Amino acid sequence: MLDHASGRIDIARLQETLDGPWAEVRQAHRKHLDERFLPVYGETGDQARERITRLLGELPVELGIAAGFPAEYGGRSDVGASIVATEMLAQVDLSLMVKAGVQWGLFGGAVAALGTKRHHDAYLRDIVEGRIFGCFAMTETGHGSDVQQLRTTCVYDPQTQTFDLHTPHEAARKDYIGNAARDGRMAVVFAQLISGGRRHGVHAWLVPIRDEHGNPMPGVTIGDAGPKAGLLGVDNGRLSFDHVRVPRDMLLDRYAQVAEDGTYSSAIENDSRRFFTMLGTLVRGRVSVGGAASAATKAALAIAVRYGDIRRQFSDAEGDREVLLNDYLAHQRKLLPALATTYALHFAQTELVAALDEIQGGDGPVDEHRQRELESRAAGLKAAQTWHATRTIQACREACGGAGYLSENRLPSLKADTDVFTTFEGDNTVLLQLVAKGLLTGYRDEFGSLDGWGRASFVAEQVREMVLERTAARALIARLVGAVPGRDDEVAVTDRGWQLKVFEDREEHLLDSAVRRLRGGASTKKDRPFDIFNDVQDHVLAVAAAHVDRVTLEAFVAGIDATADPAVKELLSRVCDLYALSVIEANKGWLLEHGRLTPARSKAITGVVNGLLKELRPYMRTLVDGFAIPDAWLHAAILREEPARQDEMAAHDAADPQAAGADSPGGVADSAAAAP
Amino acid sequence: MLDHASGRIDIARLQETLDGPWAEVRQAHRKHLDERFLPVYGETGDQARERITRLLGELPVELGIAAGFPAEYGGRSDVGASIVATEMLAQVDLSLMVKAGVQWGLFGGAVAALGTKRHHDAYLRDIVEGRIFGCFAMTETGHGSDVQQLRTTCVYDPQTQTFDLHTPHEAARKDYIGNAARDGRMAVVFAQLISGGRRHGVHAWLVPIRDEHGNPMPGVTIGDAGPKAGLLGVDNGRLSFDHVRVPRDMLLDRYAQVAEDGTYSSAIENDSRRFFTMLGTLVRGRVSVGGAASAATKAALAIAVRYGDIRRQFSDAEGDREVLLNDYLAHQRKLLPALATTYALHFAQTELVAALDEIQGGDGPVDEHRQRELESRAAGLKAAQTWHATRTIQACREACGGAGYLSENRLPSLKADTDVFTTFEGDNTVLLQLVAKGLLTGYRDEFGSLDGWGRASFVAEQVREMVLERTAARALIARLVGAVPGRDDEVAVTDRGWQLKVFEDREEHLLDSAVRRLRGGASTKKDRPFDIFNDVQDHVLAVAAAHVDRVTLEAFVAGIDATADPAVKELLSRVCDLYALSVIEANKGWLLEHGRLTPARSKAITGVVNGLLKELRPYMRTLVDGFAIPDAWLHAAILREEPARQDEMAAHDAADPQAAGADSPGGVADSAAAAP
Repeated sequence: MLDHASGRIDIARLQETLDGPWAEVRQAHRKHLDERFLPVYGETGDQARERITRLLGELPVELGIAAGFPAEYGGRSDVGASIVATEMLAQVDLSLMVKAGVQWGLFGGAVAALGTKRHHDAYLRDIVEGRIFGCFAMTETGHGSDVQQLRTTCVYDPQTQTFDLHTPHEAARKDYIGNAARDGRMAVVFAQLISGGRRHGVHAWLVPIRDEHGNPMPGVTIGDAGPKAGLLGVDNGRLSFDHVRVPRDMLLDRYAQVAEDGTYSSAIENDSRRFFTMLGTLVRGRVSVGGAASAATKAALAIAVRYGDIRRQFSDAEGDREVLLNDYLAHQRKLLPALATTYALHFAQTELVAALDEIQGGDGPVDEHRQRELESRAAGLKAAQTWHATRTIQACREACGGAGYLSENRLPSLKADTDVFTTFEGDNTVLLQLVAKGLLTGYRDEFGSLDGWGRASFVAEQVREMVLERTAARALIARLVGAVPGRDDEVAVTDRGWQLKVFEDREEHLLDSAVRRLRGGASTKKDRPFDIFNDVQDHVLAVAAAHVDRVTLEAFVAGIDATADPAVKELLSRVCDLYALSVIEANKGWLLEHGRLTPARSKAITGVVNGLLKELRPYMRTLVDGFAIPDAWLHAAILREEPARQDEMAAHDAADPQAAGADSPGGVADSAAAAP
Repeated sequence: MLDHASGRIDIARLQETLDGPWAEVRQAHRKHLDERFLPVYGETGDQARERITRLLGELPVELGIAAGFPAEYGGRSDVGASIVATEMLAQVDLSLMVKAGVQWGLFGGAVAALGTKRHHDAYLRDIVEGRIFGCFAMTETGHGSDVQQLRTTCVYDPQTQTFDLHTPHEAARKDYIGNAARDGRMAVVFAQLISGGRRHGVHAWLVPIRDEHGNPMPGVTIGDAGPKAGLLGVDNGRLSFDHVRVPRDMLLDRYAQVAEDGTYSSAIENDSRRFFTMLGTLVRGRVSVGGAASAATKAALAIAVRYGDIRRQFSDAEGDREVLLNDYLAHQRKLLPALATTYALHFAQTELVAALDEIQGGDGPVDEHRQRELESRAAGLKAAQTWHATRTIQACREACGGAGYLSENRLPSLKADTDVFTTFEGDNTVLLQLVAKGLLTGYRDEFGSLDGWGRASFVAEQVREMVLERTAARALIARLVGAVPGRDDEVAVTDRGWQLKVFEDREEHLLDSAVRRLRGGASTKKDRPFDIFNDVQDHVLAVAAAHVDRVTLEAFVAGIDATADPAVKELLSRVCDLYALSVIEANKGWLLEHGRLTPARSKAITGVVNGLLKELRPYMRTLVDGFAIPDAWLHAAILREEPARQDEMAAHDAADPQAAGADSPGGVADSAAAAP
């Protein structure tokens, strides 16, 4: 039990723990992003686009939004800071975050990562300082996830020493491209490189798409993707190229070069491998989207929890006690496990950003195994955080009732703006397959297909022997797991080692059995790889989900271990229990099927979870306050008006006891007829 | 196994089965609601409101939207037809449906049900024919679900023979009121009736809120709820009354009268009971919302399934077969169980509408037990259908990737417009409590509180002995359940009797144990009823959910039994298997805990579900075609453009085999980097 006396939490200590290594970046945002940057509700699309573009130019330099670029171009080579900055921006306005993410993350990031010094010298400072707006033109209408099969072509012509960039048919047009419909002057365009009649796979070029007057360049057709569910401030558009001439030196040629005579060369021989190496440099986009989704989730939870702490739904039958929304078990069930998961994912994201910063932030060569693991982690946590955001923001909106449906209470825009995150920067289902594939092959395969997983025989040979790689705080985790006695029944379900072991066992068993099923399938229907993999697709996705759950729990455990303040540590430990047991509860069917839980223990877990809800009820507000979101950023009318209303109502009822229903025997109503 | 040869379905027969008893109402809508009525994407709020109000006046008379009113006022006393009409309208445009629902359902319905002949003669025809627009002003800012405790007062003054309608403080203002911000001329206002210094509970008055020029009446303040997540065409507003004089005869006095001298009389003595009787007449609103949610779900599924049947995601590794989105197991898992549940809920809704029509459609007195059961059913199915809509439309939007985020593909508006359904016309969680309460008390209690459930001792005595009341096709269900042998393991999991029995057992056991826990709690902490009920709130909600699942399955089984066409029957039977086993799979944790499933059988179910997905894959399109949604109504650009694009791409690839990736060994990509 949390000791309520000693457990009084110093919010500053909690915030410190959560703010983590880039605390000063977070503080700079909290300080410098004033009300000018808050979302405006009820704008037209044009108004929103105009405002967001303007604000992009007004972002205070103190934020370090371009911190990831080298110092000579206006950054400070701090990759982690740029990711954290994007996350903070997302808490204020998601259109602003996406617009900034396109400009400095995707567009600027691609020029930096795929281009060479001449591109950097010519363009990077203008990009960093917002004088050149740009797009990241990869996705095509007909090819969302299958980016290796893009149909746009870029054919080298030695005669003119130019490339011919061309959209062969409508399904090959670039689609959903941020910054394209209104502001983009240039684009990094991905297309199939063809030289001397040979195809060399997908490469990227830096291509002007508008002239200085904002008119499309010759041969470039620009369309508008039109109104969207959310992100009204982002001008998503469509680009088509009609034999556009691109100078040879506009090929972003860090990984492959085309000589004047058309000779193609690359240090990476295999087309697929080269392509995925190029993509790998762009992993920051996914890390940013995951972080942004969690930032929005935190804002939604802060609104719902604070509202639930002031809002009375029914009066207590006896009328002698104020019952608040947050006092209801059902309400706690909606918000608290989601809040615990948000904490868990926060620590996992922090760990991921640190790993990214370490692996990609240095000057030396990147360790390939670590890079692939990083990509896998980024993919898995992006999927987990964005799905969690969609679910949780929905729950928060419902928890606020009709008020949650009004734009003035912010939840509608949080919901609508983040919705696209589950399918952009990689469709979540496809990303989880990527995670599973890494686990199945130990990141050792030949960059083959994800979808058909390459030839089945190949995969069946490659699937690795099961070795679980532990993440952060290896030694600590190993010690905790090692201390669990053989017979589970003797251990409390709040034993951290037991929880870790359940998570590990689930991943191991799922992975092991997936390997067996894939091998079995491969031996019987070698000619139909699609069917072999499709038959186990749900199983394979379950492997990935279990893996992400485990690394998330391990990150949480490591985060708690690194916390100095004892009261904060104790609180986080209960939150971690709630996270771990919520996941176990959600998967109890599988655990019972596989003898990992007895029926009695499984039933007991429900009771323990409910007990944790009761124990954490007094800390709900503390837990959202720990996110340290400035009050102004929450920008929800119910939080400004509701306390005054409740006071006024209470004062009125005190003056007129009849009004409070003291004369009505049952006391409260059992029907909810809130009118539309 | 479905016999694919004999199983070729005649869509007309399937449609006939689904269209049910009010088929001609459905057909009239399909015929008369042309493109004028389709949603417009990207409008401003003002444009949307203007358009929807105009369209409301242009609704073809053939639709029978006001069919529920008596013939002398322009209807034809066909309650069922009016519900089905609302549902059909929802498939075209949800703003239009809600606006119509407010006018003819809530407002007109309240005047008809709560008023007497003088109100009917004076206003009903004008309401039916749209000359008087009105509002249903119940909900207050401070009282969403607890409508019995509204704070607005209406005090009778015998001197002037008028009521004094007053909003005592801001939390008592009427909020979220449809039709208030722009169009409403009158409102049915709910307030506490006080006469001779005595309070008599909540009653309703018909109150003019605007004059003929559209200006607020003296003492009436009208506000605008402002931009919302969706339903842009509905003018939700706020009403406050500053000592507004309401003539005595504007009290809607079917259930209670106030004489000139202020004497209050009612045939129903108990204030609570009278209030709930009044509310009970308004149950149609909930039935309509549930139906509307399902109508929108069907449209979303039709879009996602049809898109998944034309869209290729990756090419098959061998390139010799077109793999469509719908071929992926994970995609089937997203869409097919949701589609099966939509079918199940369709039959449950049809049964509910028929019951409503039978119970409330006649002239005679309403059987109270049946009425309460109807209210419970309406509450439960409203919650089930609206949550299912929110989840399923979200899944459909994700299943369409980035395209699902563009307004032109309709999913964003389906999602945003239906979102409010989970909390309006009764918050779903509160509604499920209502269902549970009915089950716990056998609909016999004294209309006490829902929230504190009245005094605990009272409830503890009242909780009924467990008797499961069967619904439709009692005899058939009993026969199927009766035929299940004692040892489960011997029965196939596709045995309908076994499935029904699992559903029944789950409800019975949950109800039984909830009763025991409530009694146990009551005997130990009599003084804290809130705590007693709060401790088991999750359990009690599980009872309600299990109940709704059972009545839904039984309705599906009855619907199949009534189907004449053998091929349709066979197909529906497989869909019913998928529904039943999906629910069992989702609840396998509980079933394993309680020994209702063995681990082996539980694992087997996952395999059977996957087998059903494979079996039903060829019928996905058939199943959405059965909804008979006119092509134009789907109103999604991807369905119009995609087939042409895919053809063009295929033709291009055929001419240039290299483009199809034939030279890339793995064949397909494992990374999805769709750009924002």
